[in-house]
Amino acid sequence: MSPFELDARLARDSDLVTVLGLCQLRILNDSRWPWLMLVPQRPGISEIFDLTPLDQTMLTFETNLVAEALKRVTGAKKINVGALGNVVSQLHVHVVARNEGDANWPGPIWGHGSAVPYDEDKKRTFLAALDQAL
Amino acid sequence: MSPFELDARLARDSDLVTVLGLCQLRILNDSRWPWLMLVPQRPGISEIFDLTPLDQTMLTFETNLVAEALKRVTGAKKINVGALGNVVSQLHVHVVARNEGDANWPGPIWGHGSAVPYDEDKKRTFLAALDQAL
Repeated sequence: MSPFELDARLARDSDLVTVLGLCQLRILNDSRWPWLMLVPQRPGISEIFDLTPLDQTMLTFETNLVAEALKRVTGAKKINVGALGNVVSQLHVHVVARNEGDANWPGPIWGHGSAVPYDEDKKRTFLAALDQAL
Repeated sequence: MSPFELDARLARDSDLVTVLGLCQLRILNDSRWPWLMLVPQRPGISEIFDLTPLDQTMLTFETNLVAEALKRVTGAKKINVGALGNVVSQLHVHVVARNEGDANWPGPIWGHGSAVPYDEDKKRTFLAALDQAL
């Protein structure tokens, strides 16, 4: 089987934060919400249940590690976790910090409006805090 | 700690299908999509990372079991899995079968329009097929 290659659209819409055991941890280029994404580095996977049982457990572990750190760093009211993949079929898991009054609250973030780019300083500060929390 | 009690809104919007090891498996009263929901029977839990590590693994196992069965039964293009909880904070995981051209495709199902009740015969047939696949 061919090696893992990140989908071109995921690559365009997000930046690499770090590589965990299984997944790339990436940040979306959209400052409306603190919005992270985990991409298991396995080729040809579209659904979570396509992963081996061990990889499924790893993905759960890494998702929850990231979710908990994101909540601590942001003080968010709720973390939204979702694996949709209707547009990009390569398996990717969104982890998003939500607060009352944020864009489209309490609705979902997906498909809502257009991305608002980060101020680079704010992004660096956020990622430094996240790195500490991880 | 008080025993587990299903949130009143989740109870109103869905019907019990069966009880798995950890979760209630429920079906949403909305025929626009084959839409299931897993609710871990643990009191006071809002985020997946609030569960014990064993319960997190159980939830992953049960979610993927249900997702795979749902895909097999429906022949869906994509399964959407999400834990949002912006409206109802009690932890619940959505498992939804999606197809091109369904309501709001390729956008998310949450917060879109109003529920369309099931024809009871169709619901029974769907649940019988799901039961077989589980």
